[in-house]
Amino acid sequence: MADQQALDEAPPVDGGEAAAKTAHVVFTPSGKRGDFAVGTPILQAARSLGVDLDSVCGGRGICGRCQVVPGFGEYAKFKVKSQPDHVSAVNKVEERYRDKRGLKEGRRLGCSAQILGDLVVDVPPDSQVHRQVVRKRAEARAIEIDPVVKLHYVEVEEPDMHNPSGDLERLEEALEAQWGITVDRADLPVLQSLQKALRDGDWKVTAAVRNGHKLVYAWPGFHERIYGCAVDVGSTTMSVHLTDLQTGEVISSVGAMNPQIRFGEDLMSRVSYVMMNPGGDKEMTAAVHETLGFLIMQATTEVGIEPTDVLELVLVGNPIMHHLMLGIDPTELGWAPFALATNEALRVWASQIGLEGKVNPGARAYFLPCVAGHVGADAAAVVLSEAPQLADKVTLIVDVGTNAEIVLGNKERLLACSSPTGPALEGAQISSGQRAANGAIERVRIDPETLEPRFKVIGADLWSDEDGFAEAARRTGVTGICGSGIIEVLAEMYLAGVIDEDGVIDGAMAAKSPRIVADGRTFSYVLSAADGDNPEIRVTQADVRAIQLAKAALYAGAQLLVDKFGRAPERVVLAGAFGSHIDPKYAMILGLVPDCDLERVQSVGNAAGTGARIALLNRGARDEIRRTVRAIEKIETAVEPRFQEHFVGAMAFPHKTAPFPKLREAVALPARKTADRAGGGDGEEGGRRRRRRRG
Amino acid sequence: MADQQALDEAPPVDGGEAAAKTAHVVFTPSGKRGDFAVGTPILQAARSLGVDLDSVCGGRGICGRCQVVPGFGEYAKFKVKSQPDHVSAVNKVEERYRDKRGLKEGRRLGCSAQILGDLVVDVPPDSQVHRQVVRKRAEARAIEIDPVVKLHYVEVEEPDMHNPSGDLERLEEALEAQWGITVDRADLPVLQSLQKALRDGDWKVTAAVRNGHKLVYAWPGFHERIYGCAVDVGSTTMSVHLTDLQTGEVISSVGAMNPQIRFGEDLMSRVSYVMMNPGGDKEMTAAVHETLGFLIMQATTEVGIEPTDVLELVLVGNPIMHHLMLGIDPTELGWAPFALATNEALRVWASQIGLEGKVNPGARAYFLPCVAGHVGADAAAVVLSEAPQLADKVTLIVDVGTNAEIVLGNKERLLACSSPTGPALEGAQISSGQRAANGAIERVRIDPETLEPRFKVIGADLWSDEDGFAEAARRTGVTGICGSGIIEVLAEMYLAGVIDEDGVIDGAMAAKSPRIVADGRTFSYVLSAADGDNPEIRVTQADVRAIQLAKAALYAGAQLLVDKFGRAPERVVLAGAFGSHIDPKYAMILGLVPDCDLERVQSVGNAAGTGARIALLNRGARDEIRRTVRAIEKIETAVEPRFQEHFVGAMAFPHKTAPFPKLREAVALPARKTADRAGGGDGEEGGRRRRRRRG
Repeated sequence: MADQQALDEAPPVDGGEAAAKTAHVVFTPSGKRGDFAVGTPILQAARSLGVDLDSVCGGRGICGRCQVVPGFGEYAKFKVKSQPDHVSAVNKVEERYRDKRGLKEGRRLGCSAQILGDLVVDVPPDSQVHRQVVRKRAEARAIEIDPVVKLHYVEVEEPDMHNPSGDLERLEEALEAQWGITVDRADLPVLQSLQKALRDGDWKVTAAVRNGHKLVYAWPGFHERIYGCAVDVGSTTMSVHLTDLQTGEVISSVGAMNPQIRFGEDLMSRVSYVMMNPGGDKEMTAAVHETLGFLIMQATTEVGIEPTDVLELVLVGNPIMHHLMLGIDPTELGWAPFALATNEALRVWASQIGLEGKVNPGARAYFLPCVAGHVGADAAAVVLSEAPQLADKVTLIVDVGTNAEIVLGNKERLLACSSPTGPALEGAQISSGQRAANGAIERVRIDPETLEPRFKVIGADLWSDEDGFAEAARRTGVTGICGSGIIEVLAEMYLAGVIDEDGVIDGAMAAKSPRIVADGRTFSYVLSAADGDNPEIRVTQADVRAIQLAKAALYAGAQLLVDKFGRAPERVVLAGAFGSHIDPKYAMILGLVPDCDLERVQSVGNAAGTGARIALLNRGARDEIRRTVRAIEKIETAVEPRFQEHFVGAMAFPHKTAPFPKLREAVALPARKTADRAGGGDGEEGGRRRRRRRG
Repeated sequence: MADQQALDEAPPVDGGEAAAKTAHVVFTPSGKRGDFAVGTPILQAARSLGVDLDSVCGGRGICGRCQVVPGFGEYAKFKVKSQPDHVSAVNKVEERYRDKRGLKEGRRLGCSAQILGDLVVDVPPDSQVHRQVVRKRAEARAIEIDPVVKLHYVEVEEPDMHNPSGDLERLEEALEAQWGITVDRADLPVLQSLQKALRDGDWKVTAAVRNGHKLVYAWPGFHERIYGCAVDVGSTTMSVHLTDLQTGEVISSVGAMNPQIRFGEDLMSRVSYVMMNPGGDKEMTAAVHETLGFLIMQATTEVGIEPTDVLELVLVGNPIMHHLMLGIDPTELGWAPFALATNEALRVWASQIGLEGKVNPGARAYFLPCVAGHVGADAAAVVLSEAPQLADKVTLIVDVGTNAEIVLGNKERLLACSSPTGPALEGAQISSGQRAANGAIERVRIDPETLEPRFKVIGADLWSDEDGFAEAARRTGVTGICGSGIIEVLAEMYLAGVIDEDGVIDGAMAAKSPRIVADGRTFSYVLSAADGDNPEIRVTQADVRAIQLAKAALYAGAQLLVDKFGRAPERVVLAGAFGSHIDPKYAMILGLVPDCDLERVQSVGNAAGTGARIALLNRGARDEIRRTVRAIEKIETAVEPRFQEHFVGAMAFPHKTAPFPKLREAVALPARKTADRAGGGDGEEGGRRRRRRRG
């Protein structure tokens, strides 16, 4: 219809002459333009030009998705004079819509408003099909809305004895005729409810179509909204983000403890449970299915939507959670060679993961692929969220858990490994350690002169030296240290000279402060004295050693990938429950990850959940992450001799030999010792080798 | 490898020279031939030529499917001299197989036997992949075995930490490398059991692959046999035929009453139950699912196979049973316009029809398409079995039930309708009527002179005038008349002049026999006197009227199709539970269907079950019947004015006006009356019209 070259050169048509047979219309922001017969509805014109203008009801004035803003005046840029009388007056359909649902000043329904003369028509972002959801962090990629399931309102022919076709086939014909959609498969659940839906809706229904060809469900009449759930199944907590599949908005987020905790606090003890108790995997699967169902029920009830409105789920989790959620015995993940049942993405019926009755009977659950036996679908989701594969700069992603999942690379190449950090970084195996919950110390500062600490406790929003802290802390208690607290206290102890770079608590400091106390043959630092119900909270030499082992494993894994890649990270992303609470500065001071500009180290919160949401809202993202995961080079730290070398060197703060120049530029670290006290022979060796390789 | 043109002309190679580099091999019965390096296994040679030679184990000497018979002597026809020393001696693999499982004299395993010189090798029928199952009736089409699910034995690579792929992906690679099969989708159940199967089988498994691309299940090691169920869900009875998917053999057949009978004897009363009791359809669905599960359990237990060995089901039934089995409320089928939920074939998970745990978790259930709201998937199955669409001759298929399903046509064109016969032809609504069960009279002869009857009773294998009948009948009782019995007694009464062509029982006959008794204003015929527990069994005037109405409806539906088609049937097929017991001669004498050569009228038994079995064993048959059903012209008798005309004419025996010359040639019918006694004005009208049209 539109010959754009020619039109760009054409003189402006005087649109005042409404009697003219055709009018010239320009759509913004796309700039698409064409000539249309006077009387053409704007929606129809937009469609014929391929303008990105939404519609669910197919132009019947019901859905209000095709709202446009005709602009008036002289548009020199487009050579168009656009006048108020170049668009038809508000008609009854629009009036009814405006009265019922509201219509902002200046907006028109594209299906009702007719072109009477030359026009410039703006399509606001919320009227675009492929609108984008902009995320909070400025550098995070926007999510383009393009879900696997979409709604289409249709009018279906009534059955006729002379031509006895099935109701389904007549619905399919309507979808073909009215939307150009060729259905090649219909689910059984849609068939089970279709006949009633068609009759209740007086032969008008809204069909949910999956991937443009599979009929999933049909509601009587016009049905406006459908939802999906982004589900992050962590070892400790499970979270569900109920998301509007058309706006991308998260309308309800709920979480709960992973009920499998009763079978074992950490993953390996759950695998052990299965090994010791035949059928134990089925118990755990049932428990996690039940909790997921409960969370979805909670999320939907909270905002008052029907289970049938939930059409799609995306699930992520570490490999063991991934397998258990799918009803696959995770035993093989418990020992070498850590064989996954599958390394591909999976789509199953939601009913196959225990969600019968909790979501639409035709809902599907999509599992992102696991990267390797120790690197899960959660890591894949973090990659999807942080998109290192699209960047020039080298990104290091660290998702800390009992196994840290580590990804390094850029658009050229990605590598991944896991590292057996153990649970210390999450506050376990620490004498005063506890989970991040009310009463846990999460922030710590130590005065380098007096060695007196001040701290913040989860649930009390004040530093311990601020007014009102005592009262606030009475409510929460001061019960222990969580993962981020232990990182901060150690880093502050190191900065204050209480511990040296080898992690030894200096007994000589006892002269400076009564907080340094002897603990048998070693020393401890008393962070908080016992007080009423509150226990004494101290950092022992054993605690320091536990963190040293954990952080050395983390560093060694990351450094191994740096070696393989041949370039140091230019951006570091700390993800996961732990990563999202840790202060990047303190992580760097302790040397959890290789050196990097401090301002390029970020805690990104629940990036796995975000990745799940991206895969929920954009079907292309699923193929993208499948391709990306397939291309990731998987490194097994257990069989890499260099891992041990890096591990030994990384026991020191921030590192035995690596110079950490960028960190030192930002933070004044204590001077390095010249002598090697703590059996650093291996460390030296490792350091020399690395230096040689780099030289 | 084989240039057939050239080889046909080539002189015979002297195969005695085993030292020659290549040898010439001819396979029979295909005639495929080629030259092969000496030492080539026969299986490999067969494969390279595309010879139809089976193998499940892929040439490992386990499955024994590749058995061949090398022939020896001078084959002038093939220009080949085939000698015993042209094939390698029996090796250890063959010895082991022979000792363990037996190997007929002269047979060799194609994977072990090597080509040493020129050979003629016969592939016996049971070694062919696409072997045929020949059916009992000579004219019935053979079934070519080509099921949707096939077995493939593979050796899978073990997992490797350096290359952490999933077990599934390594199995897929093995299927690709060893069988050329590209799996594009794996079911969740296969994933749930795969890891154990691989390890239990020491990395050798037998995979079940659906449609050549979908992985359904895997068994540890070599797994030899898989099965399917052909299921016929009738209103009254349900039957399951457990079938070997590789040989086509039915290894167990079980049946049970349809438990829905407690909701209503006939279909319409079941639909009424649903209309009156919201949720009643779910009760009925549950009942029929439970019975199906029970029957499958019974069938598998009987022959000692595991539920996991059942991979596929094909279900047929009338539209109401079809819908109820699928969990679709059948209410819409209870009133005009009798709208089907779908008129297409359906594939669902077996677990979706209540078979969880009863069959393989990856098993699917395939429903043949319904033809129309009154013409079900059972009719489609009968078409598949009787194949009118492949014949030149015009076939009339009649499946009698409460609604008769009628199909007429040939390879040019097929038409179908249903006709509301009511339940009289099944023995219901008849004063002494009963279901076909022990004690029911099923065969009747009446002496035209004395009017004395003799009869046969189900369960007692003797005529009532034979020695030993009294004793046999004591066990069964003589309790009533079933459908085939009522047809025969009426036909014999008509032949003996007890009833006239209009169906009136002639009271004047009371003078001839005391069996003719007055019954108020009409007369009855006493077929069997009351005797002990046995009731009196009489045929009343009302019974005759009920059968007249039923048979007239049947005839009228068939004649309507004959009208539309423009040609009379050259073959008549009586199908269904009733049709399989009826004697074609008596059906013709009463005029149940239009005139046809008596020897071309057949009772074909449970043709619907056979059709289901064909669709189970041959995947191509599924597409064939879908195409055929789509092309069938569906006629709705309720809106066809000619149906009423035909109906009235067909009230008489065999017909008011149609001459039935072929029947009269075979059977001496009573002379026709000239006067029209029973209000035959309409009948005359109908007859005239039909004659006009044909003239």
